[in-house]
Amino acid sequence: MAEAVAVDHLAGERSKAQFDVDAMKIVWAGSKHAFDIADRMARLVASDPVFRKDNRTMLERKELFKTTLRKAAHAWKRISQLHLTEEEAMMFRFFVDEPAYVDLHWGMFVPAIRGQGTEEQQKKWLPMAYKMQIIGCYAQTELGHGSNVQGLETTATFDPKSDEFIIHSPTLTSSKWWPGGLGKVSTHAVVYARLITDGQDHGINGFIVQLRSLDDHSPLPGVTIGDIGTKFGNGAYNTMDNGVLRFDHVRIPRNQMLMRVSQVTREGKFIQSDVPRQLLYGTMVFVRQTIVSDASKALSRAVCIAVRYSAVRRQFGSQDGGPETQVIDYKTQQDRLFPLLASAYAFRFVGEWLKWLYTDVTQRLQANDFSTLPEAHACTAGLKSLTTSTTADGIEECRKLCGGHGYLCSSGLPELFAVYVPACTYEGDNIVLLLQVARFLMKTVSRLGSGKQPVGTTAYMVKAPELMQCKCEVQEAKDWLKPTVILQAFEARSVRMAVNCAQNISKAQNPEEGFYELSADLVEAAVAHCQLIIVSKFIEKVEQEIHGHGVKEMLQILCNVYALSLIHKHLGDFISTGSITPKQGALANEQLRSLYSQVRPNAVAMVDAFNYTDHYLGSALGRYDGNVYPKLYEEAWKDPLNDSVVPDGYHEYIKPLLKQNFGVARL
Amino acid sequence: MAEAVAVDHLAGERSKAQFDVDAMKIVWAGSKHAFDIADRMARLVASDPVFRKDNRTMLERKELFKTTLRKAAHAWKRISQLHLTEEEAMMFRFFVDEPAYVDLHWGMFVPAIRGQGTEEQQKKWLPMAYKMQIIGCYAQTELGHGSNVQGLETTATFDPKSDEFIIHSPTLTSSKWWPGGLGKVSTHAVVYARLITDGQDHGINGFIVQLRSLDDHSPLPGVTIGDIGTKFGNGAYNTMDNGVLRFDHVRIPRNQMLMRVSQVTREGKFIQSDVPRQLLYGTMVFVRQTIVSDASKALSRAVCIAVRYSAVRRQFGSQDGGPETQVIDYKTQQDRLFPLLASAYAFRFVGEWLKWLYTDVTQRLQANDFSTLPEAHACTAGLKSLTTSTTADGIEECRKLCGGHGYLCSSGLPELFAVYVPACTYEGDNIVLLLQVARFLMKTVSRLGSGKQPVGTTAYMVKAPELMQCKCEVQEAKDWLKPTVILQAFEARSVRMAVNCAQNISKAQNPEEGFYELSADLVEAAVAHCQLIIVSKFIEKVEQEIHGHGVKEMLQILCNVYALSLIHKHLGDFISTGSITPKQGALANEQLRSLYSQVRPNAVAMVDAFNYTDHYLGSALGRYDGNVYPKLYEEAWKDPLNDSVVPDGYHEYIKPLLKQNFGVARL
Repeated sequence: MAEAVAVDHLAGERSKAQFDVDAMKIVWAGSKHAFDIADRMARLVASDPVFRKDNRTMLERKELFKTTLRKAAHAWKRISQLHLTEEEAMMFRFFVDEPAYVDLHWGMFVPAIRGQGTEEQQKKWLPMAYKMQIIGCYAQTELGHGSNVQGLETTATFDPKSDEFIIHSPTLTSSKWWPGGLGKVSTHAVVYARLITDGQDHGINGFIVQLRSLDDHSPLPGVTIGDIGTKFGNGAYNTMDNGVLRFDHVRIPRNQMLMRVSQVTREGKFIQSDVPRQLLYGTMVFVRQTIVSDASKALSRAVCIAVRYSAVRRQFGSQDGGPETQVIDYKTQQDRLFPLLASAYAFRFVGEWLKWLYTDVTQRLQANDFSTLPEAHACTAGLKSLTTSTTADGIEECRKLCGGHGYLCSSGLPELFAVYVPACTYEGDNIVLLLQVARFLMKTVSRLGSGKQPVGTTAYMVKAPELMQCKCEVQEAKDWLKPTVILQAFEARSVRMAVNCAQNISKAQNPEEGFYELSADLVEAAVAHCQLIIVSKFIEKVEQEIHGHGVKEMLQILCNVYALSLIHKHLGDFISTGSITPKQGALANEQLRSLYSQVRPNAVAMVDAFNYTDHYLGSALGRYDGNVYPKLYEEAWKDPLNDSVVPDGYHEYIKPLLKQNFGVARL
Repeated sequence: MAEAVAVDHLAGERSKAQFDVDAMKIVWAGSKHAFDIADRMARLVASDPVFRKDNRTMLERKELFKTTLRKAAHAWKRISQLHLTEEEAMMFRFFVDEPAYVDLHWGMFVPAIRGQGTEEQQKKWLPMAYKMQIIGCYAQTELGHGSNVQGLETTATFDPKSDEFIIHSPTLTSSKWWPGGLGKVSTHAVVYARLITDGQDHGINGFIVQLRSLDDHSPLPGVTIGDIGTKFGNGAYNTMDNGVLRFDHVRIPRNQMLMRVSQVTREGKFIQSDVPRQLLYGTMVFVRQTIVSDASKALSRAVCIAVRYSAVRRQFGSQDGGPETQVIDYKTQQDRLFPLLASAYAFRFVGEWLKWLYTDVTQRLQANDFSTLPEAHACTAGLKSLTTSTTADGIEECRKLCGGHGYLCSSGLPELFAVYVPACTYEGDNIVLLLQVARFLMKTVSRLGSGKQPVGTTAYMVKAPELMQCKCEVQEAKDWLKPTVILQAFEARSVRMAVNCAQNISKAQNPEEGFYELSADLVEAAVAHCQLIIVSKFIEKVEQEIHGHGVKEMLQILCNVYALSLIHKHLGDFISTGSITPKQGALANEQLRSLYSQVRPNAVAMVDAFNYTDHYLGSALGRYDGNVYPKLYEEAWKDPLNDSVVPDGYHEYIKPLLKQNFGVARL
């Protein structure tokens, strides 16, 4: 965001850019409309003192939590006062940039009722939820049960006498554990529990359960609730009241079971409706698409900080008494930083494509066409896994790229990492998700030649016979700039790894055992497939019409950086499958180095294109004006430890040492 | 540590072990003597309530800092009361396990005076320092200057009139920044500044400067000191007062310049003594050896937590209503966890060898033999880099391997990561260090055939002609168990990567430019060389006499896991240099899988061998007895947010929302 600044230490960098930054901003935002809204909302939030973030990492838990409650309430008020549209409100909340109970209320509680409630239930609960007359969370995971929903222990036993369910936590490990917004705020929850009627277990179902009194907020009888304690990082997710919840035979009316898919009748009969279960997968596609989109935001934010500070910071390299070398000019710095810059753009575009995919899946579901659903499900699972892992590692790498100062909370990077990294675990552990992708790939491979054509992102597998044989045609470094060459190398690698796995599995006593035994290899095959998807979507994007001087050319460069840096990183895959030769691998690396030189003069402008305010970045190192050191210095003095010159504890624990009268004499 | 426990959920695991755990404990500790001391000191600390750690991540900064002061003073008192030896005292402080000003006092201030002070200076200052009548820190880095010592801006100008130096901070970026112990505690510092006499700049020298009054602890005139603010993580390094320091023309007597290597005379003449500069490298070898040893401790601690919890935790896999599968039985879990277990052992043994190297170097220096110093310097730089990077990443990987619960501070892993990760940056940024190794490798390669024989860890390079040509002899998976085969593959890879780099550099216009241009490749060559060192030292260790049933066999397995997992991870290097074929790479992977099955029944016993107390581990997930869930539940309730059922802020920020009278009506 081009803010009015008195000084711009990065002006020199900005003048070097070889493309139209404003046009790139539109491409990054997705459209002029999206850009305008984001720009306006970001400024609204940044200019409101209630939303200050600079002291967040210094507050103790209770104070921190209270400021979060204040921000959430203030945001709700401002959104109402300004009559923001739903789209605007979403962006507004996004720029408030603080995990809070509202995320779960809007993101999980409301959608659960919308997706799993009957029309009658929706009519009853949604209006209250929309007005926040009730605040809800999503109580699924338990102390002893995370990924495996079928392992949940909480019970919901139907009592036909009273027409009620009895919700109960039979063991310690059945305590609900982790739900955000549960610990201190939610009045209601959608609770997932094992449905039991007449002694029979019908598996996991959802129930709307009131947890707290709407009068004084105290937990209802039989309900024990608390916060599960401090989490990784300063500030970060400690603004969220992830909670623990135990039920001691709590009764709810029968009509609070979410009954769209299954019902329990007045007589206690369990009925499954004919609503296809697949509909639930649609929601998963939606949620994961959001996660991929968030990955590009988090990674771009870290990259923005690291690129700007690398241009400001100078170390070594002055032989003649002149200024030291800008850190961004070191090839080792470029080699770590520019692939992450390219990844941020790559994830942005694959996220955009996933939005389209969700629309497509939704339309098909409405027309009872489930044919693309398994592929869409596998594809989003894999992309969620890949983008969140790369982003978490990438943020930490950006932190290290800022040297020692990246370790200070005032750099913004420690909190960014700590707040981001759970994305690797929630909504499906990343390794578990890759195994799902692998399972789908194995199925696809086994059906090749059966007449059943692979669809969507696996469509290339129809070319398996050629891809198993083809030779990469690269003879000199610049051949690696051809999209067809890149695509073929990634397709060949992916197909060959999948087919290898399938062949090895077939040697096992039975397929399940083979799959289990080879699961580490299968994960690698899944990664190869997902990287191909991202590369191909980036290539497709760049082939579209793109406006603005030099914009398309810059994206082309980043697309190649993304693809070639992956080839270098996974060289073993590419060469051992014979997809490329060692010589071609060396040429790819040579081409990559020359692409870095093309990125270098544009790097600062490429991160300016994210259009992030200094408020949103929240980093002394990533400031738009590059005026880093005065800001770091200023931030330091805000630390509570600087409240007094002589620290608390001096008289008890330092002075006696110095004066040598510290108990030892008493021996 | 076999504590008296009422319940042992891991008893089944322990009974599976195929080796003598007590004997392994001795191997891990290094000797019976070392084991006994560590065991005794760990128990002493663990049983002392002053050293409790369970609330550390919940305390706000000032309170946290005060408890650290208390612990440091209490440790000093206990060490004196118990008349502990220096060796015992070191272990005692180690198990207190909290970064504090004392680390810098003993680890940097005292050694700086010992190493750089004249005998007279040592006689004056050391007795006070030993008794802690003064407390010192090491003030080198500045706000604008980290790695590059020659870039420091603080000045020490000699004033011949008063026979004093004037210490001054001429710019904001010259503010001393980061020194531990500086912010709130140190009374003195060794300050590194640019020495100026008679208008001439003589480069960076060290000066002993008093910072605070010994009467009331207030900063002396002209001295501005503060803490630089919150750092990454809860608890973690926030127990340390990393500081900022500015001088406004502060005067110190001439005899407070550390004058062992250079002197300034009464007349202001600058003299360099004939003490060889190389002596300073000896200290670096010592410090880095300590860092490598710490890496094995930190990594083993994370691995211990992850292995135990992976054995306790069950997810999925129950088809028939039986218990779910132990997470440690999943191949994907083993594939991530067991190489880290092997790395912990590998780092332990290479650290042990570095201790020997330091003794060797010291003895040679005393005999004026500098021949092995450059090699020892490069080798320790590289090992510092490799072990700290792997450990930082490894701790975070262990955290992820614990699923969602690893994100809770009560798992101990977030703090372990946050407190460890600066090791990648301090004492030489890891990438800068690898470039130093690469520079040494290039020099070694250029001298091959010149008659000057490579020494120490580069001695294998004398075989370069054979290693450039040799073929790996592996024909079936079990061939990969031969140490000679493994060594040859690693040596071939390392030599070939180094020679490749040298050849590519020689194509550049000049060597400096070539080195700069290829620095990313050079880093990879340096990594290959350092991995070879670790592998070869592990192999040497295993070839020694080792007592105890099955101990040697287990170490053999871990050694192979370490080597083969590196081959798999860096397959591109090995294959593209022709050191092994793709087929041999696949066989290595196959052998690795079978090694995992051999590790599996011994995994819990292998981490028991670290002999860590529950106090030291500080993890609800890593408990010796495996009684994880009750402990997690108990820890949660300690969070300050659970002080009241209804949270602070309810009346202001939640109730008005629920009651719908939240200002909006006023519109």
